Amino acid sequence: MNSFSIGVDLGGTNLRIAAVDEQGLLVEKVTLGTKVSLGRDHVLNDMCDAIQRLSEKYKNSAALLGIGIGVPGIIDMESGLLRESPNLPGWADYPVRAEIERRLSTMVILENDANVAALGEKWLGAAKAFADMVMLTLGTGVGGGLVLGGKIWHGMNGMAGEFGHSTVEPEGYPCKCGNRGCLEQYASATAVVHMAREAIAADPASALARASHADPEFSAKSIYNLAIQGDEDARRIYRRVGRALGIVLSSMVNSLNLPMYVIGGGVSSAWDAFSPTIFEELRQRCMVYAATAPPDPLASSGGASAHVDPGSGRKTIITRALLGSDAGLYGAARLPMIAAEKR
Amino acid sequence: MNSFSIGVDLGGTNLRIAAVDEQGLLVEKVTLGTKVSLGRDHVLNDMCDAIQRLSEKYKNSAALLGIGIGVPGIIDMESGLLRESPNLPGWADYPVRAEIERRLSTMVILENDANVAALGEKWLGAAKAFADMVMLTLGTGVGGGLVLGGKIWHGMNGMAGEFGHSTVEPEGYPCKCGNRGCLEQYASATAVVHMAREAIAADPASALARASHADPEFSAKSIYNLAIQGDEDARRIYRRVGRALGIVLSSMVNSLNLPMYVIGGGVSSAWDAFSPTIFEELRQRCMVYAATAPPDPLASSGGASAHVDPGSGRKTIITRALLGSDAGLYGAARLPMIAAEKR
Repeated sequence: MNSFSIGVDLGGTNLRIAAVDEQGLLVEKVTLGTKVSLGRDHVLNDMCDAIQRLSEKYKNSAALLGIGIGVPGIIDMESGLLRESPNLPGWADYPVRAEIERRLSTMVILENDANVAALGEKWLGAAKAFADMVMLTLGTGVGGGLVLGGKIWHGMNGMAGEFGHSTVEPEGYPCKCGNRGCLEQYASATAVVHMAREAIAADPASALARASHADPEFSAKSIYNLAIQGDEDARRIYRRVGRALGIVLSSMVNSLNLPMYVIGGGVSSAWDAFSPTIFEELRQRCMVYAATAPPDPLASSGGASAHVDPGSGRKTIITRALLGSDAGLYGAARLPMIAAEKR
Repeated sequence: MNSFSIGVDLGGTNLRIAAVDEQGLLVEKVTLGTKVSLGRDHVLNDMCDAIQRLSEKYKNSAALLGIGIGVPGIIDMESGLLRESPNLPGWADYPVRAEIERRLSTMVILENDANVAALGEKWLGAAKAFADMVMLTLGTGVGGGLVLGGKIWHGMNGMAGEFGHSTVEPEGYPCKCGNRGCLEQYASATAVVHMAREAIAADPASALARASHADPEFSAKSIYNLAIQGDEDARRIYRRVGRALGIVLSSMVNSLNLPMYVIGGGVSSAWDAFSPTIFEELRQRCMVYAATAPPDPLASSGGASAHVDPGSGRKTIITRALLGSDAGLYGAARLPMIAAEKR
């Protein structure tokens, strides 16, 4: 390799650091727990130690372009301040970028975690061949990233891409953002469990209820397992996930007419259970999709085996992510490379 | 003037042609009826005669950069074909651009009418100082145009900007696009009259009912007149207009984080009746708006007197259009100028 950068995925649970070369090869990855309870400085020490180790190890054989860090929360792109981060208590308004640059004397770029995941899938994943794309990350919440012309679209304050707070049901479930009926209330892991708890309350003798009692870690994954076993309550919940995604994607496709929409995050492993409903909704609701749908959308969205040729007829592709939890790590590592190309 | 271009607004009712100089000065405007019933060739003859007259008159004193034409419908940008146009029967799949270029031997650019209106407001109207903006045109339907980096965002097939078909109510009124509960079903002139007819059916003795019987041209404007006289039924209808716009704008502001959203078209003359509800909805529903709202949004959206400084603190401005029905004419004239800048 001629050059490399270091990507960091700073989550509320895991702290992952990787050296990635300019071809997208993951040279080495370090996975640590994010010891949030020990305080901000402890986490920063862990992070900087790992970055230092990786950079010392490889910087004699290749040029270090910089460090990219994906962080959950709202970032002030100009100042490098972390404005708000519910999963990183005590970090609000802290000059994260300046502090890490001071410690490591290397260029640091901070970016929202959903945005770096989008950039990762654009660089090396499902949207590899596309300059314009959206990624929705279905995790604890629903994150979003918009890439236009190969670059993250930040909007005027760096707040763009909050597709998780698009309204699905104007009088639906209240969301902590202040709105009602946000996509996040129907398509996140939290929402899947919440809808299951509602179904259990309505029918305490159901298979869903029995599973929730038997499984201390009852989760979106447990509900997906029931769905693939044919449980109608569980299947209905995932159809609601698909319906909400279909409604929001319809408005997005009509508004932006992009070639590629990628669905990732933990909940996307239940793709089989919710994706048919997405395509049903799109066919009914979205005139731009009706005019641009590939003949067999599910065939072109079957995960790792999917091969999509962007030149063939300009179709609207909606597909699942390919990089799993590494999307953010690759996207973060890509940030210093894009900055270097600009120079 | 050093150079000028000719803008055409080809509507289902009016055909308007104007010579506009590179500063945005309207040099001369011709307004004709669009004689749709006499057939496509008749309309084309009228249009080309008027363009020819204007170009002969001014081309000795300035260089003609080309002709821009705003057309209602879906346009294939590459081929210059009008794909579909409900208001221009008999024009579908006709090579409009090639035919006019053949007749006039001048460069012709065809563009969707809502897109040229957006470009007009961006060039000379409410969004003058902004490179990134959205315009919603509330007319018979609801059109939309998205401008990014000063240029119309077409998407991959030229179909972007269809904000009028964003879903407001997933199980709401059916729309001719195939969806239910589109913005167009709540915020167009057609929708205002439709909601009034529903209210009249529910209360045939209401002031709304009396007005509809007395006025053979009962329209969105008549309903607005009742609203400003304090009629509660009429006011409720315009609050529904504002609520639908507020719901769609909330998702747009969260997704795109643009500095400027302009509301135009005939229904926007009822701005006083619906805009307070837009801002109520945005404050409640939209976290990005909550973080970026100007102190007094209605003060900054008072029409021609509004002066907005885009540098001051990066606020989200939602305001009414300034150019009225000329927006499309100016935007159409702007198209050849942008093309000339690129050369």
